[in-house]
Amino acid sequence: MSSSKLHIFNSLNGKKEEFIPINPPYVGMYVCGPTVYSDAHLGNIRTFLTFDIVFRYLTHLGYKVRYVRNITDVGHLVDDADEGEDKIEKRARLEKTEPMEIVQKYTNGFHQTTEIFNLLPPSIEPTATGHIIEQIEMIQKIIDNGLAYIENGSVYFDVKKYAEKHNYGELSGRKIDELLEQTRDNLEGGNEKRFFADFAIWKKASESTIMKWNSPWGIGVPGWHLECSVMSTKYLGKEFDIHGGGMDLKFPHHECEIAQSVGADGIAPVKYWMHGNMLTVNGAKMSKSLGNSFLPNELINGDHPLLEKGYSPMTIRFFFLQAHYRSTVDFSNEALQASEKGHHRLMKAIENINNIKTSPSSSVKVDELVEKCNQSMNDDFNTPVTIANLFEGVKMINLLNENKQTISDADLTKLKSHFHHYVFNILGLKHESENNNNDLVDNLMNVIIDIRKNSKDKKDYATADFIRDELNKIHISIKDSHEGSTWTYEN
Amino acid sequence: MSSSKLHIFNSLNGKKEEFIPINPPYVGMYVCGPTVYSDAHLGNIRTFLTFDIVFRYLTHLGYKVRYVRNITDVGHLVDDADEGEDKIEKRARLEKTEPMEIVQKYTNGFHQTTEIFNLLPPSIEPTATGHIIEQIEMIQKIIDNGLAYIENGSVYFDVKKYAEKHNYGELSGRKIDELLEQTRDNLEGGNEKRFFADFAIWKKASESTIMKWNSPWGIGVPGWHLECSVMSTKYLGKEFDIHGGGMDLKFPHHECEIAQSVGADGIAPVKYWMHGNMLTVNGAKMSKSLGNSFLPNELINGDHPLLEKGYSPMTIRFFFLQAHYRSTVDFSNEALQASEKGHHRLMKAIENINNIKTSPSSSVKVDELVEKCNQSMNDDFNTPVTIANLFEGVKMINLLNENKQTISDADLTKLKSHFHHYVFNILGLKHESENNNNDLVDNLMNVIIDIRKNSKDKKDYATADFIRDELNKIHISIKDSHEGSTWTYEN
Repeated sequence: MSSSKLHIFNSLNGKKEEFIPINPPYVGMYVCGPTVYSDAHLGNIRTFLTFDIVFRYLTHLGYKVRYVRNITDVGHLVDDADEGEDKIEKRARLEKTEPMEIVQKYTNGFHQTTEIFNLLPPSIEPTATGHIIEQIEMIQKIIDNGLAYIENGSVYFDVKKYAEKHNYGELSGRKIDELLEQTRDNLEGGNEKRFFADFAIWKKASESTIMKWNSPWGIGVPGWHLECSVMSTKYLGKEFDIHGGGMDLKFPHHECEIAQSVGADGIAPVKYWMHGNMLTVNGAKMSKSLGNSFLPNELINGDHPLLEKGYSPMTIRFFFLQAHYRSTVDFSNEALQASEKGHHRLMKAIENINNIKTSPSSSVKVDELVEKCNQSMNDDFNTPVTIANLFEGVKMINLLNENKQTISDADLTKLKSHFHHYVFNILGLKHESENNNNDLVDNLMNVIIDIRKNSKDKKDYATADFIRDELNKIHISIKDSHEGSTWTYEN
Repeated sequence: MSSSKLHIFNSLNGKKEEFIPINPPYVGMYVCGPTVYSDAHLGNIRTFLTFDIVFRYLTHLGYKVRYVRNITDVGHLVDDADEGEDKIEKRARLEKTEPMEIVQKYTNGFHQTTEIFNLLPPSIEPTATGHIIEQIEMIQKIIDNGLAYIENGSVYFDVKKYAEKHNYGELSGRKIDELLEQTRDNLEGGNEKRFFADFAIWKKASESTIMKWNSPWGIGVPGWHLECSVMSTKYLGKEFDIHGGGMDLKFPHHECEIAQSVGADGIAPVKYWMHGNMLTVNGAKMSKSLGNSFLPNELINGDHPLLEKGYSPMTIRFFFLQAHYRSTVDFSNEALQASEKGHHRLMKAIENINNIKTSPSSSVKVDELVEKCNQSMNDDFNTPVTIANLFEGVKMINLLNENKQTISDADLTKLKSHFHHYVFNILGLKHESENNNNDLVDNLMNVIIDIRKNSKDKKDYATADFIRDELNKIHISIKDSHEGSTWTYEN
């Protein structure tokens, strides 16, 4: 264990604070998951990777983490301001199918994508449709506390009333007066809301809506912000340790979550709020309309005009981790290619640890290296500094292999375990297993080509021909040229 | 398309009937999914494979199939007769965690297993906890129709009352008089049921129960049989085409499903009931207490005293398909090894189609082969006969490659497409891709070992040593003995 202690940047007050769980060794963490109406985009993946690292590191520190990441399968409207169709129903109409088929399709796709990037599954992955009763019950509590009003079959959270006693805007820094100002500009005639910042916690369903439920206020759908309050409370309690999400969710989504929980139970729900930053491409915001947005699969296959080639999932994971989660990340071919090399060097170093020979004493300082990695992770999960620290370890490994430094048995064991632990368990990187097998085939072919070259040099043409014929039998053809021999395999 | 028409054995009347969907080209199919409190066992896998074939074949016939397979995540009690703890809660207590963590863990595991066996994901995979409101609404309908009674916070389906007008026992063949007889023997004092065959549709929750909900009858949990009626109705309508499951679910589960649907909506819900048969091992029933039950992973890894070795997922899939779904299947090493060879021969034949040379005319009858495959599948999805028909095709392919028969261009295209379609799309078999690469490594190592043996025979020890050293560098060690050389690779 490190002498330093974990500190987390808390979005609630903008400060790095020592992490002290409410009920150690248990830690509760809630992260807003995807709305499953389309393929997960890279911004989502970066957010989930951030909290994958938090999950892994807290587990490494010995905490028993219950990690809840929801699936939004109803209630997220096309227009975030409580208007327009449900995103999933809209997609179902486009794909001429039933909303729950859309949910199934994109949930499956999301799971495949998280697996490709080696994101650990959360402990619980609850769905909005799976918690309608609980949502109705929370709405009732908020109404009973006088903080919501019913209007034509919908229920709205009364932000102005709430703000009389509580600090609405605490998380996002929005001022209630400014929001009040916007009311005059934005609330058109006929709008059911009394105040611009009010938000639906229950929305009356139209005739054509497919996903809808009975409630004390008529047939409708829970508001989008509500599910997260309900599911975090149900599985983590009224007060829990960490709530994470992308920066774009800070307002209104997370601000409303606080208001709902305080409005229902009188308790601020979250001790540490964490927000991940956004992605850019060649310096510009990633956006579909700018044509510079790509999906995970396009990035992996290199199937986009802006991409010179495909990058493996582990290259992309390494690339993301080279930036701190609170910084923006800029995609460029140069940066991705540098990450590819970096990831490869790191993996190579781990293999090379096995070739190190030990001495009676150490000239290298392994404890110091371990301590530095712990310190950087304890500093608000600073993965780029941690990776830089690991690369000092890579230098160490190379010097040891060149016999320019010495290491004792005990220190070598420590170095090996430190690298394995940090690279595989905490950063969640891995060998690209497919490549591994391909590497082995490449290596074997290099051995065979060398043998064949030696035979030809010795004018042992019988052996050279034997090799060519045997390879032909297993569908490998050898082509000789002045520069040497190349080979192709046809399955 | 075949001149024959699809016929399905309908468990409801014990007859093979022509398949005529209620609303073509749409087909609704509901299959009872797993209760996610432990790893899926092989019997489950066989059942889901059966309906994977049904799903694939109906799709092949041009139907637009909505395939619903549920996840039971609450309500399935340890004792099927409405007593004892919830299976998932019991497991949660054993694993010292929260029920929904158990649900998550075993749902993830189940998905991994179905993927390994190449089972297509269903169109919708709804959960019991996701449909509590709908279940409460169906209970209310049944009560309103006078077919359920409330007793101490629980609601029971009144089978005797139902049987006055409807045929309870229609599916399973149970006689209401015999069930009545059992009432005297089995209903102890204090039991809330009026009649032995009555079943809970809402069960009052005890203080210690974790998963429970408010209802008009107090805090409780829906009865296990109810979820399937509710979810099939919600996603497929009050009347749908096919309902499938294992034979052990016929009574009471499916019998109760019919009673619930008829009791709520007055309509028999299912046109074709299909039931898959059971597994045995070396002739005996597979059972944990007999020590002859193994999990999918144990079968794949060969990690069980009864298994001589591991069998690949595609070998196991092929093995299952060699029996008709209404027959029992007996596991034995001999049978699995025969399937391994059979699967390999089939895959090899598909590769060999590419080597066939065409002639101006055909001596083989491709149309006849295609027709025979369609006929056997149309005969209640008879996969073993279909596989036998495909092996006639394998013979055809081999004779063509030996130039003992002739085939025209057009027929060859047809043959190729028929094999691809039947083997990959309908039977859902595939090449074992991992083995493929391992095979290549094996083949290359055989070439290298042969070269080295030749060198040693020629007393060219320099080459033999060169080979050994080069292999060592890439972590392969060669071991020589009187029987020849073996090698090991350490990554």
